[in-house]
Order: sequence, then structure tokens, then C-alpha cells
Amino acid sequence: MTFGRADVEAARERIDGYVRRTPVLELGPGAFGLDARVTLKLELTQYTGSFKPRGAFNKLLSSEVPEVGVIAASGGNFGLAVAYSARTLGHHAEIFVPSNSPKVKADGIQALGAEVRVVDGYYDEALDASRARAAESGALVLHAYDQPEIVAGQGTMGAELSEQVPDADTVLVGIGGGGLIGGIGAWYEGRTRVIGVEPETSTSMTAALAAGGPVDVTYGGYAADSLGTKRAGEIAFEIVSKHVERVVLVSGDQILEAQRRLWREVRIFAEPGGAAALAALLSGWYVAEPDEHVVVVICGANGDLEAVAG
Amino acid sequence: MTFGRADVEAARERIDGYVRRTPVLELGPGAFGLDARVTLKLELTQYTGSFKPRGAFNKLLSSEVPEVGVIAASGGNFGLAVAYSARTLGHHAEIFVPSNSPKVKADGIQALGAEVRVVDGYYDEALDASRARAAESGALVLHAYDQPEIVAGQGTMGAELSEQVPDADTVLVGIGGGGLIGGIGAWYEGRTRVIGVEPETSTSMTAALAAGGPVDVTYGGYAADSLGTKRAGEIAFEIVSKHVERVVLVSGDQILEAQRRLWREVRIFAEPGGAAALAALLSGWYVAEPDEHVVVVICGANGDLEAVAG
Repeated sequence: MTFGRADVEAARERIDGYVRRTPVLELGPGAFGLDARVTLKLELTQYTGSFKPRGAFNKLLSSEVPEVGVIAASGGNFGLAVAYSARTLGHHAEIFVPSNSPKVKADGIQALGAEVRVVDGYYDEALDASRARAAESGALVLHAYDQPEIVAGQGTMGAELSEQVPDADTVLVGIGGGGLIGGIGAWYEGRTRVIGVEPETSTSMTAALAAGGPVDVTYGGYAADSLGTKRAGEIAFEIVSKHVERVVLVSGDQILEAQRRLWREVRIFAEPGGAAALAALLSGWYVAEPDEHVVVVICGANGDLEAVAG
Repeated sequence: MTFGRADVEAARERIDGYVRRTPVLELGPGAFGLDARVTLKLELTQYTGSFKPRGAFNKLLSSEVPEVGVIAASGGNFGLAVAYSARTLGHHAEIFVPSNSPKVKADGIQALGAEVRVVDGYYDEALDASRARAAESGALVLHAYDQPEIVAGQGTMGAELSEQVPDADTVLVGIGGGGLIGGIGAWYEGRTRVIGVEPETSTSMTAALAAGGPVDVTYGGYAADSLGTKRAGEIAFEIVSKHVERVVLVSGDQILEAQRRLWREVRIFAEPGGAAALAALLSGWYVAEPDEHVVVVICGANGDLEAVAG
């Protein structure tokens, strides 16, 4: 089976009514001191504060969910999204949260009715524990970015965007495991330029492109809480190889500066991972032509407000 | 001359390209635990973080601005808007700021290139000083809410909204001096229900309606930094009397709770004055029918992030 645009279209019908159609905002001339036309896709206003419910709903609505419910590993946005979508659809959710996750996120997942299992260690330990448990319980496993239904669900953001901004020349998207950019790339199929953005300390997709396939990397630093992944998804890698023009890297300082300027000039708060795409534009790692219409996806806001308050 | 919808239409053409078309966000079923359909008008993403540039641009673009420039009194959103619009159009701006204004706002006005004059006392002292100075210098005076061009400019938000949400049943709008609700009321002319919202400690419009015309009131409390006014505008009063169904009052605690829930459920930050309209809906002071489509105007975000961070 080849994964592609038709899967995104099917996902869109499937999750209609379960997710918000998030707004776009064209900033007007001279935004951020640039000549390009800049439009923001305010996906941070999605349920649970990130794009992740799109994929979670698509997976749940296209699966037979057993009585015992669903299982996922995540200490952050994906965990919130799985908890939210499972609750909405009346399923039990068990979320394996690495012990290094901020307590506030684990609490948020619990507040959405999910059973939270804290696992000593990092994401990979939590993932292993969740798989062991699922093998035992028979629960449906949701992977944060490397399942076709998840990628197709995230791609619905691209389908929505292409209706809202039909004349976009370029779409800038942050990359963690690649679920979002995979879905968006599959939707656009190269018709619109898609540029990926990774923090320079969390480069699983850059490494995959260099190696000709996903490989293990070490990661950390600013924005790693949402964009840090040990290994890019196989599905996303295939799509990015084909349909994404290139992946650029930004520093932690550039991400923080993007968060601050977004707040100052638009009064929108983004978490580090949600501001990485904007950082590429503001730092000049992606240089737009004067008449280019650039859409920047602001994909999450589950972060620390103090970053912009200072 | 009767002020009305045609003035708003003319303003809209005049300021086209100078202000942002701010997005709307339909929240989806069950938003805030309500049965009604709720859409937010995210006017807080306007230049300078509030709706105020709409009126300021309309006034400047429909006036002969003398060499000496423009004058206004405001320690807040209007001051930012006048400074911004004057800078954009190449005019000098002198802003009289009451000494009780937060320093951060005065600094913001100065950062936009305006000359800031701090006046001992409150808004009324600053207003008197600004008038005395204008009589001397010949500068063009902009009033925060009681000039027809200002009200017409703010009304463009209503014109925009009626295109974006043609099936709105009700629009909830916060009231300070009445510039925004006056413009919106003039635009809708009763075709759509418009409800005003005042903090219970800053009730200049409620007092005006009771007295049959604007009267002096004392004011203070939460949200008074943007909604507190000694006296409602004459222009706004006329329109509100005719075209606004009623004005409801909300407490400071209800406004704070609305700010927090807006952040939790939509990841949007509003200043107190920007969240007052939402507070009316969440507190039940305005009760919507189950199938009613309610638009809540979130009109500003120049506030203290700590209010929602806790």
C-alpha cells in the first residue's frame, strides 16, 4: 500500500467535527521586518494546544478499539491528544509517561481522564514499557508519529491550509518524528514548497536524509521536549525524501527569539517546538523572495509562558 | 449628520491594508461546557495587540494632519495604536500618559516612536493636559472613543466579522468608553443581536443608559486599565441606546476566570478587558440558547501573562 494524498482526504472526512478548523492570520506588509508575505497557521488553538489530536482521532476512528482501550507513550502533546480523543470517543486510555517529563504535562494527561504510568527514564523506556503492556492487555497501540493513520491525520492540517491559503508558495513546518511534515508533504505532493525545520540539537530527520533512512541519533536542548526524537519515522522519511525541498536547522536561541517576537508582534504564545518553523524564517536560515507567500505553521503552545514574559 | 453604517463602510475602504483582518475560531461542540455554538473573534492579534488601530488609522487617513502631528491621551491600548498608526503614516505623535499607567505601556508607546509626556494623575488629567497642549501646538487631537472617525474605524471589526461569520446570532463585546461597541452596533443596525459587557466596577455605559445620557461615574477594579472610563462617549451612547439589546455586568473574579479558561482551552491570552465579553458567557450573565451561534470578541492582549500562568 502506498501512503498518500488519498489517505489524508479520507482522514479529513473521518475526523470532521472532532477537531477544530484552526485559523490563519496574514500578517500584512513588513511583518517581522521581512519583505515576504507571511501567514501564520494558528494550529496551537487546536484542542489540547497542538496539532496532535488530528492523528489520534484518525487512528481511533479507523480502528476497532478493544474494550480494554488504547495505549500510548508520551509525556507531552501526543499524550494529551490521545487522552483527549479517547475520552471524547468513550475509550479507556493508558499513557506511559517518561519520568523526565514535566509534571504539569503528566497532570494534564491525567486531568483528561487517562491512566498515567510514570516510567523511569526517557521516551524510549516509556515506549518499551507501553509495548510490553499492550502485548499483555491487548490494547490498541498509538504511535506518536510512525503509523499511517497518525500521519494521515496530521496531514489534514495541510488539506485545511490549502483551502485557507490557496496561493501559498511555501509552508514551513517543524519536525520532531515527522508526523506533521509527513502528512503535509503527502497532501501537497510537491505542488507547494514544503520546508522542514529541526532544532540543531534534535536532528533525526536531517540524519535520516544523510543516511538514506532513519537512524538513531542523540538529542536534547531547547525544543527537545516536543521535537526531540531518537529516530525519524519510516513513513515520514519516505515522504520527506520525495516531497520536502529541504530541512533547515535552527538554534535554541533562535527559537527563543522567535517565541518572543511572535508574542511581541502578534500576541500569540508558542512553545519552543511550535516556534521552530518561525525561527527558520526570522533567523534567515530560510530566505524568502520579496513576493513569496510563506505560511508558517505554529503547531503548539504547551510551554512555559515565562519564556516570552521577560 | 447622522452617524451610521455608511461611515463604517467608508472607514473599511480607507484603512484597508493598514490593519490586519483578524481571524475567527469556531470552538466546536461543548466549548466551555456550553450547548451554544461559540466563535471567537481574535482581534487581539491586531497590530499593537488590540482593536484600537482601526479607529486611529481611520481618523488619520480622513484628516488633514498638520506638520506638528497628532496628540492623544492614553496610557494604554489607544496610545499604542496612535503611536503605531502615526509612525506608519509618517506623522509625529505626542502621547499624554497618566502617571498611574504601567511603565511597560508607556515604554511601549515610546518604542513606537511617539513622544511620551507623563502627567501626574489619572486619564482625565492627561486628557486635559493633551488638550491644552493641542490648543497651543495646533496638533490633530485623537480621542480614544468619542470621535465619529474613531467609532467608524472600530466598527470595521464588525463589518469584517459579518463576512466571516454571516450566521452569527449574537455578538458579545466589552465596553470601555464605547468606541468598539458603538462601531459594531452602527454596522449591524440591530440585524444581529449585540450585547455589551462592562466590569461591575466600571459602568459608564450602564450609568448612561440609566440616566438617558452619559454621566460621570467613578471606576476602578480589575479590567479598569482598559475598560475604565469616567464617562461613556456621546456617539456610542446614541448607538447603544438604539442598537444594543442590553449591557450586562461581570465581576473581576469572573473576568480572571474567563482569562484562565481561554488560556486552558484555546491557548489564547487576553488582557482583562479583552476577556470581559467571554466572562459574560461563562458566568451565565448572558445565557445563550442551545442552538444559538454566539461570537465573543476577544479585543486585546496587552496584559500580564502571570494572570493565566498560575
